[in-house]
Amino acid sequence: MSKTAITRRATFNSAHRLHNNQWSDEKNELVYGKCNNPNFHGHNYVLEVKVIGEIDPETGYVIDAKILKDIIKSQVTDRYDHKNLNLDVSDFKNLIPTAENIAKLIYENLRSSIDQDKDLKIKLYETENNIVEYPA
Amino acid sequence: MSKTAITRRATFNSAHRLHNNQWSDEKNELVYGKCNNPNFHGHNYVLEVKVIGEIDPETGYVIDAKILKDIIKSQVTDRYDHKNLNLDVSDFKNLIPTAENIAKLIYENLRSSIDQDKDLKIKLYETENNIVEYPA
Amino acid sequence: MSKTAITRRATFNSAHRLHNNQWSDEKNELVYGKCNNPNFHGHNYVLEVKVIGEIDPETGYVIDAKILKDIIKSQVTDRYDHKNLNLDVSDFKNLIPTAENIAKLIYENLRSSIDQDKDLKIKLYETENNIVEYPA
Amino acid sequence: MSKTAITRRATFNSAHRLHNNQWSDEKNELVYGKCNNPNFHGHNYVLEVKVIGEIDPETGYVIDAKILKDIIKSQVTDRYDHKNLNLDVSDFKNLIPTAENIAKLIYENLRSSIDQDKDLKIKLYETENNIVEYPA
Amino acid sequence: MSKTAITRRATFNSAHRLHNNQWSDEKNELVYGKCNNPNFHGHNYVLEVKVIGEIDPETGYVIDAKILKDIIKSQVTDRYDHKNLNLDVSDFKNLIPTAENIAKLIYENLRSSIDQDKDLKIKLYETENNIVEYPA
Amino acid sequence: MSKTAITRRATFNSAHRLHNNQWSDEKNELVYGKCNNPNFHGHNYVLEVKVIGEIDPETGYVIDAKILKDIIKSQVTDRYDHKNLNLDVSDFKNLIPTAENIAKLIYENLRSSIDQDKDLKIKLYETENNIVEYPA
Repeated sequence: MSKTAITRRATFNSAHRLHNNQWSDEKNELVYGKCNNPNFHGHNYVLEVKVIGEIDPETGYVIDAKILKDIIKSQVTDRYDHKNLNLDVSDFKNLIPTAENIAKLIYENLRSSIDQDKDLKIKLYETENNIVEYPA
Repeated sequence: MSKTAITRRATFNSAHRLHNNQWSDEKNELVYGKCNNPNFHGHNYVLEVKVIGEIDPETGYVIDAKILKDIIKSQVTDRYDHKNLNLDVSDFKNLIPTAENIAKLIYENLRSSIDQDKDLKIKLYETENNIVEYPA
Repeated sequence: MSKTAITRRATFNSAHRLHNNQWSDEKNELVYGKCNNPNFHGHNYVLEVKVIGEIDPETGYVIDAKILKDIIKSQVTDRYDHKNLNLDVSDFKNLIPTAENIAKLIYENLRSSIDQDKDLKIKLYETENNIVEYPA
Repeated sequence: MSKTAITRRATFNSAHRLHNNQWSDEKNELVYGKCNNPNFHGHNYVLEVKVIGEIDPETGYVIDAKILKDIIKSQVTDRYDHKNLNLDVSDFKNLIPTAENIAKLIYENLRSSIDQDKDLKIKLYETENNIVEYPA
Repeated sequence: MSKTAITRRATFNSAHRLHNNQWSDEKNELVYGKCNNPNFHGHNYVLEVKVIGEIDPETGYVIDAKILKDIIKSQVTDRYDHKNLNLDVSDFKNLIPTAENIAKLIYENLRSSIDQDKDLKIKLYETENNIVEYPA
Repeated sequence: MSKTAITRRATFNSAHRLHNNQWSDEKNELVYGKCNNPNFHGHNYVLEVKVIGEIDPETGYVIDAKILKDIIKSQVTDRYDHKNLNLDVSDFKNLIPTAENIAKLIYENLRSSIDQDKDLKIKLYETENNIVEYPA
């Protein structure tokens, strides 16, 4: 039987800044441009968490969407929403909060909460024009 | 040559209720929560039907979108739109109308109308926050 | 000084049926068509509640969006979401739940919870193609 | 003859914090909640600038959309995009950057660049659920 | 009693060109820029037709949305969709098809089909960033 | 390590016509229907360009979105936007501009500008109901 995917959407609004502190200010400005602004900028991130598995014949669910919603809330949005990703969230102590790194980190944070026989995929909209997926 | 996909979007507005009649009312309430409401609730379902195949060099089409539109209309939206999925649609006589099961059933209903050398994928938005895909 | 508006968006998913029980079945079918389906159908309603007033110079708010969110939750979405508007919601005991009537009723339900020196406007999306506003 | 409106949409991504420095930290926390986070948070603001006037019979335009686009760019998005509204934008030196105040300020910044025989209206989406308009 | 508005959304996909044939080619290029391209360009226009009136207490409708849908189809979308507005639609024989003029013309075409005790308003999205309304 | 995808969205507004000049007018009308209109029609195309690869540990990027934006601009939108695809764009001299063929051609035009160790995928929305992907 083919597998089925269920995706749950959530949002969080955060400040961030792209800055590699092993580089000079000039190189940071060159690579990151206006995303390197020292006083931060921010986004309404839209997060889609997709879980892929078999449909449970008793419930008709791949995973209970309410449970998935609660996992996303406790492990992502409660920790990231209305926060400064660089300063307030330990996940980014040693990781530059590009959309790619945020998506990969959310995957790693959620992976152990989802049954191992299910696949997990993360899609993150930083803006309406800039979207990342992990794993691709 | 790589394959190309064409997706056609359609909508239908239906009432439904999640209820496993082999369970007690308490268990149904526990598992399905407010989706178990005895008098039903409803959704504006958004359906995306994706057909994957080779581009016909003469027409430039994978499949004529008008033909795909008509197949979706006769086999899905004419049968589901402005209906109660539990009471009015025979497809759900023995199947709980979760988004997962609806998507899988739409796949099975459409599969024989699409050439077998083409792949078929279903994406169904139950709400803006709850989305399923079959096959994943 | 000009007034400022703040709008808060919310959603609810409900079943309903359009039926005037002072008419014959034939007339109901003629006027309401598929919206008259005896077993109901449903929608993902999108509600926008707009409050118009002066900006409070101390807070910078017309109204605290969190307070407006809570009013909408207790008076509308907790009462309508995952419900059958005709059977489960007393508001529609003697009122046909057309989008127009739902919007007008939500206005009347919310009006007393919003300061009288502020104007209130309701916008309700029944589908992406069908939208009502009260007062216009 | 009736007037016609033309609206131009633009976006900017900024960090901000709601904090009234004439209040105690406790009162700020009480009024602004998580919007008071000391290290800021951020949004993808969506701005709609509406200009209302007569259609010029020669051009068929109320105002040339390219000119309106350039005015918005130089006076709003170049100054606000990828900035911290509290720290980087002088407009908010003495003004709390609530959505209401941002919209009102954008109106005041743009008003003199638009012919006085035309009306101007600002709509600002802070999130998909939180929208302000000035003048209402 | 306050009035209520009902809006019906429709779409049409058309080619057009902005060109004032009383001007030199240089002036046309100067004023209309790339919209003056001699071989036309095109848009997915999104049309919203708003009718404002009293709710009929018997039906709960301001106007039957199906009737409004049919009026829009026969008078606008059947005539404009998959057409070249400049060459195929007589309405634009002597009128430059700017978004402003298209909206005003749709208003004039629809006005006599809507009861005179009801108000009519047209909103037309030429792109996601360019929107007109008539009357404003 | 799993790969990561970054998608950049862009838009272009073009006229086109579906017509196979090796067929009779009757056959063209039969196959393409209103898309065969001799004077063209048009669309607001929405393009999503997805690049799949490893995250660069130094930058946190799969590819710099600004660079990807510039590639899309010079190779697609500057050439297609506000143009007639059949008459103004040499790419379609011998290729019918169906959405499938446009997507495949954009892929071929962009492929050499993206590092060969990265995968490339194109998604093109012709309308909100008609979407193609290449490779599928």
